[in-house]
Amino acid sequence: MENLLSDRIKKTPPSFIRSILKTAVDPQIISFAGGLPNPISFPQEELLESMQRIVKTYGSKCFQYSITAGLPEFRQYVAERYNKRFNLSLTYENVLITTGSQQALDLIGKIFINENDGVILEKPSYLGAIQAFSQYSPKFYQVELTENGLNTQQLEQTLENNDNIKFIYAIPNFQNPTGLSYSAQNRKDVCDILKSKNIALIEDDPYGELRFEGEQLPYIGAGKLENSIVLGTVSKTVTPGMRTGFVISENKELLRNISVAKEASDLHSNIYAQYLIWDYLTHNDIETHISKIKALYKKQAQAMLEAMAKYFPEEVTYTKPQGGMFLWATLPEGISAMKLFPKALEKRVVYVPGDPFYINVKDANSMRLNYTNADCETIDEGIKRLGNLLKDAIVENKSSLIS
Amino acid sequence: MENLLSDRIKKTPPSFIRSILKTAVDPQIISFAGGLPNPISFPQEELLESMQRIVKTYGSKCFQYSITAGLPEFRQYVAERYNKRFNLSLTYENVLITTGSQQALDLIGKIFINENDGVILEKPSYLGAIQAFSQYSPKFYQVELTENGLNTQQLEQTLENNDNIKFIYAIPNFQNPTGLSYSAQNRKDVCDILKSKNIALIEDDPYGELRFEGEQLPYIGAGKLENSIVLGTVSKTVTPGMRTGFVISENKELLRNISVAKEASDLHSNIYAQYLIWDYLTHNDIETHISKIKALYKKQAQAMLEAMAKYFPEEVTYTKPQGGMFLWATLPEGISAMKLFPKALEKRVVYVPGDPFYINVKDANSMRLNYTNADCETIDEGIKRLGNLLKDAIVENKSSLIS
Repeated sequence: MENLLSDRIKKTPPSFIRSILKTAVDPQIISFAGGLPNPISFPQEELLESMQRIVKTYGSKCFQYSITAGLPEFRQYVAERYNKRFNLSLTYENVLITTGSQQALDLIGKIFINENDGVILEKPSYLGAIQAFSQYSPKFYQVELTENGLNTQQLEQTLENNDNIKFIYAIPNFQNPTGLSYSAQNRKDVCDILKSKNIALIEDDPYGELRFEGEQLPYIGAGKLENSIVLGTVSKTVTPGMRTGFVISENKELLRNISVAKEASDLHSNIYAQYLIWDYLTHNDIETHISKIKALYKKQAQAMLEAMAKYFPEEVTYTKPQGGMFLWATLPEGISAMKLFPKALEKRVVYVPGDPFYINVKDANSMRLNYTNADCETIDEGIKRLGNLLKDAIVENKSSLIS
Repeated sequence: MENLLSDRIKKTPPSFIRSILKTAVDPQIISFAGGLPNPISFPQEELLESMQRIVKTYGSKCFQYSITAGLPEFRQYVAERYNKRFNLSLTYENVLITTGSQQALDLIGKIFINENDGVILEKPSYLGAIQAFSQYSPKFYQVELTENGLNTQQLEQTLENNDNIKFIYAIPNFQNPTGLSYSAQNRKDVCDILKSKNIALIEDDPYGELRFEGEQLPYIGAGKLENSIVLGTVSKTVTPGMRTGFVISENKELLRNISVAKEASDLHSNIYAQYLIWDYLTHNDIETHISKIKALYKKQAQAMLEAMAKYFPEEVTYTKPQGGMFLWATLPEGISAMKLFPKALEKRVVYVPGDPFYINVKDANSMRLNYTNADCETIDEGIKRLGNLLKDAIVENKSSLIS
């Protein structure tokens, strides 16, 4: 059967996280590996009300086939919310509903990538995006992500040296995996670099609403670049289980192509879920709801940072996110977070090693830690276990360097 | 921007049906074009009960991220139902939930097709499948579909002459677009032909439960062929709006690859919808529900056939389906159903012309007619309009042949 399979699927890496999640079912294990939003973000009671209201109000429309781009009313709501938040001039025609943002990544790969076309990613980048794009056999270029955003010199160089680049994929707010955000200046600089180029810019922004420190910044490309695409989702603010995301672009020709690809991929996203989310958003105070999530995540992030200050050896550095769900720890050179993983599992604490966030990197000295799905005491205990492990690893690493 | 797009998306045809549906919004138009199930098939009251029950019972699990293959309980239900109906020995591990059957088609394209790999389709075949597979640039071979099923001689010849065939895509029950079904003998013959071959067989069966005449027949490949895949869905029996379909295969290695492709495509299907459908199916008498749909469709099919006998010129032949949602009319040679379409639109009756169901065929003398979404009086009136149009076209065609 092997020879029946496409080269494409042989090249598509299964997700490391999802494999971890399968093995880490022991309830004694403290998991910082997943990317699960805290269940506090699911407004169950209000959604239940909306379920009854939409069936009563829209009846069979909630259950019938529907149009590919998605429910116009919901798309208009999204357009208006982004207009208000970012001073844009979108209408429902600039919004297309996807089956979660993961589908948006797949559709973007579909409509842009021929074999060996270039795709620029942050270094490190979101592994789900690497997985989605990999299906279409691009050539990946990773540009260093710094405390301020993309390394613009490296970006310019990469663009200069390669004429095959189709798009740049960036997560400007509380990036997955690092938790880093692009500064206002960096956003401007990146925009200036791209202005004269025939290249699309994908800004994936699942966490943008979850800023618990500092001020909201404008997108790099939205409202400014011709081939700008912004990805959004309700997964982190309402529910991920409903698989409801959206693509926003002022470029209707791009959206038309994404729509053809979507039609071929799943016809349309669950229309009941679209009515439901739209009804929920228009009948409730979403800002108050989001502020609850942010308050919790802020507390959890602080708990993790405080525990790291207490328990982590000083040779380990880590990011201090202003929002989102993750932070990123960098170990001394020579220590592989991947090799450390089985030991961590023994101590019943898990994280995601850096490797899957890079292209062709093995034994990276970095790890992603999620803080949104454990209470503060559990976070303290988990970081303590991890800290002890790291101390041992550093001693071992030093002695191996000497010997 | 054009040069930013992939060859793939340039080669993917937008759906003719979906374009029609957009133009045919005039409520005066009688549409036999769509493939919409009758809203009678949506058990709204019962689904509303299930919505309340699952939120109460499973809480945040209905709203959180979930596993790629789908809710094990729902998959086990599907396995047991197919075991009972077809004497198979499936477990939940043989079932993977998809975002509607359209996604299954996309995933199958993804895991099998390299550029120029061969795909065998029925002639004519389902346009949504042609669209999904086209994204992966296969070479299509169409094997004639007869009153009894596939033309086995042609099938053997196609297999003999081409060593690049990856899979055969077939709709053995009440085929879309023709309404034809494979006979018991034809199923056996096709199975025998494929037994020694390293080729996958995809049996797409969205309408199998909607048999209103004759006896249920076994699948061609399920339980018999190593690389057999059966596609199913609740779209025609419960709701299409929830985008819930499934892939069934005894070949777990095939399912594992489909699962990796699905993970990269949308992580997992709406988990709330899976709880909902599963709860509905296990708390209600689904057989009684389906029997109501069948009774209605039988009446509607009869109404259409009777109207055709009354109004269609005798030169036009048509299929007599034993179930499903469509029938297929064949016009005298030389009459293009596509060219006739604007005239039909003027008379306010629409259908799908044959062309999009074929590979590289223009001006086919055939059309697909759907009977499930109009009442019997409307069907009579629509077929009358169409009959008059066909009579005129035949007269015109004859005079053009003479002149």
